Amino acid sequence: MSNHLPYEQMLQNQLVLPQVLLTSYKNMNMNETELVIILQLLRFQQEKVTFPTPSEITDFVTVSEEECSNYLRTLIQKGLVEILHEKGPEGIIQEKYSLEPLFVRLFETKEEKKESQDISKE
Amino acid sequence: MSNHLPYEQMLQNQLVLPQVLLTSYKNMNMNETELVIILQLLRFQQEKVTFPTPSEITDFVTVSEEECSNYLRTLIQKGLVEILHEKGPEGIIQEKYSLEPLFVRLFETKEEKKESQDISKE
Amino acid sequence: MSNHLPYEQMLQNQLVLPQVLLTSYKNMNMNETELVIILQLLRFQQEKVTFPTPSEITDFVTVSEEECSNYLRTLIQKGLVEILHEKGPEGIIQEKYSLEPLFVRLFETKEEKKESQDISKE
Amino acid sequence: MSNHLPYEQMLQNQLVLPQVLLTSYKNMNMNETELVIILQLLRFQQEKVTFPTPSEITDFVTVSEEECSNYLRTLIQKGLVEILHEKGPEGIIQEKYSLEPLFVRLFETKEEKKESQDISKE
Repeated sequence: MSNHLPYEQMLQNQLVLPQVLLTSYKNMNMNETELVIILQLLRFQQEKVTFPTPSEITDFVTVSEEECSNYLRTLIQKGLVEILHEKGPEGIIQEKYSLEPLFVRLFETKEEKKESQDISKE
Repeated sequence: MSNHLPYEQMLQNQLVLPQVLLTSYKNMNMNETELVIILQLLRFQQEKVTFPTPSEITDFVTVSEEECSNYLRTLIQKGLVEILHEKGPEGIIQEKYSLEPLFVRLFETKEEKKESQDISKE
Repeated sequence: MSNHLPYEQMLQNQLVLPQVLLTSYKNMNMNETELVIILQLLRFQQEKVTFPTPSEITDFVTVSEEECSNYLRTLIQKGLVEILHEKGPEGIIQEKYSLEPLFVRLFETKEEKKESQDISKE
Repeated sequence: MSNHLPYEQMLQNQLVLPQVLLTSYKNMNMNETELVIILQLLRFQQEKVTFPTPSEITDFVTVSEEECSNYLRTLIQKGLVEILHEKGPEGIIQEKYSLEPLFVRLFETKEEKKESQDISKE
């Protein structure tokens, strides 16, 4: 018998990610664990958790808390993830992870090519 | 200067996946590499490539072709992926990967719980 | 100059919907306004607003509040949307829209066909 | 009995769209029918049909072929949709709809605001 989850629940709890992340992470010197940590950060963001602790992430990945911290540090050092400081609802400064540098790399790598195309248009 | 990809291209080439895959793979005894291979299979399916070779997958993951074959075999042995045989356009039998067993596990794990809820309703 | 939204914001605020909703609403005797009201309900759900008022919906559609109420009533009468009563965090009964009946129709319409296929398999 | 579609099929055939399209179309002077025609164009694109005829679109919307043509013309006149000419596989010039102008408006409307924010940063 198929006692499946309600369709509504299946459809609401989805994660959308750029395909180019899956096709480019290897060329960006990331390994599978780093990619999955990025995906977990995306998932937490969608749940409005913008600064999950290594311990919270570790609940969902197979690496230890310490390894997870190291991977996060490495992603920051590689310039793919950054930590932003934002004023929260009560004026308290809060930290949050941003994946903007990663997306800039994924979506803006074609600069020079594009330029030469612009020339050929004229 | 931001010579970014056209928005149309960013928006069209996305992969949608159930969040529960990210939160449950660890409990299903999968590791990060196995999860990413699953995501690559999903991505290939979206491109209408339903039976990518280990070599094709290896272009996008950090493991060797041989390791990739082993991971695929393991995923099949664990009952998460299966190989189906379908009649193609010219009557030729074609193989394809199906992730249906994985989705059944993700979406139908609550059977017994659900049943007891049904009882309590009465 | 392209002062675009951060990519992170573009990618996080997306709505995922079954293609079959777009290809089947006409056959289910819905018109474009009803379809868009359904999409707005989906969007509100994603924002954790599970029982938007006609006035809140009307901010985003071109029909009046009264027409919007009528459309919602029609969708309920057609058996596509239902109102559920749920216990909220403090034990207060809350109403919420559910699109489950719509999804059941979209995903379970092939019953008889499926059965005959099963027969032909043997 | 729930003879539902395979989960694989549910999950693969989805359309992803920016939420801001649903919240802004009214302010961009589009009505529900125009919005749904845009969604149909997105859906066709995903199926690699980049220049559907009004007749093909009309199969899935409640307006007549002539009205559909008019709506497409209006969307082009409003500068939201454009027709591009591309060299196809055999060097033949092919037409295709592009929604890039619509996305530019959705994602780049904050220009002046952004600039003033930049000033206030200093």
